[in-house]
Amino acid sequence: VEIRRASDADWPALWSIWHEVVAAGETYPWDPEADETIARNHWMPPAPAETWLAESDGDVVGTYIVSANRPGLGAHMATASFMVASKARGKGAGRALGEHCLERAKSLGYQGMQFNAVVETNTSAVALWQALGFVIVGTVPAAHRHPTHGLVGIHIMHRSL
Amino acid sequence: VEIRRASDADWPALWSIWHEVVAAGETYPWDPEADETIARNHWMPPAPAETWLAESDGDVVGTYIVSANRPGLGAHMATASFMVASKARGKGAGRALGEHCLERAKSLGYQGMQFNAVVETNTSAVALWQALGFVIVGTVPAAHRHPTHGLVGIHIMHRSL
Repeated sequence: VEIRRASDADWPALWSIWHEVVAAGETYPWDPEADETIARNHWMPPAPAETWLAESDGDVVGTYIVSANRPGLGAHMATASFMVASKARGKGAGRALGEHCLERAKSLGYQGMQFNAVVETNTSAVALWQALGFVIVGTVPAAHRHPTHGLVGIHIMHRSL
Repeated sequence: VEIRRASDADWPALWSIWHEVVAAGETYPWDPEADETIARNHWMPPAPAETWLAESDGDVVGTYIVSANRPGLGAHMATASFMVASKARGKGAGRALGEHCLERAKSLGYQGMQFNAVVETNTSAVALWQALGFVIVGTVPAAHRHPTHGLVGIHIMHRSL
């Protein structure tokens, strides 16, 4: 996969992935019916946040956003979110995006990365982040209303950069 | 203290507290120089979020905001933030606001409350939340740039309602 910055021209492809992932309700909290305006405000945030994507044979197969997790006195800690199209899963796009994001965050000067809400039933994501050096700081119980598992916990995960 | 909903007319008093607390840099991440517009966007959020205040002898001595911690599938979990004027500390206003906030959140239908970033050196707040039934879910290291202690951790805290 090739990883590059997303531009406005990429939005239709990103919206397709965003909608597919959010409609499933398994990994993000947004209302599964959330519309394109909500999606775009979420996934195309203003600078200094950045949106990147992974392309394979001309298809956008995944994407991430990276930004400061908090303002001011917490702005040295990055956060990031990731989405991979269902048809592209299990082929390494998530890992490639994750590795790219960590390098990018470090080059932007962030000193660590914090994930605020990794749904605990999203075991492939949890395993990937652990493989990339993240630890589970703790788990907030019953914080995500999963469409099939009911109320499940969310992990806060962290690693230094 | 009497606890009541804040209105637009209360903003000057709330801004005074907000600025004092944020300028200290000890408990909130906002740039200590953050201006009134940032403050108002933070502390007077649109419904369904709510802003409450504590009054003592006609003086506003403290305040809290309560809202959903996340959208959609996470909106059953509340979050809240608290500020008490320095001159009023140690007299129970924080505890009164905390107890009121928990009751209010429950009556609004929230099933739990999550604090996303309790600065670990803010030991009086940590002790108060523990006394009110919160547990420390975990601590993200070096997430807050404290003006005198340097990089300190932030606790994620939670309790059910």
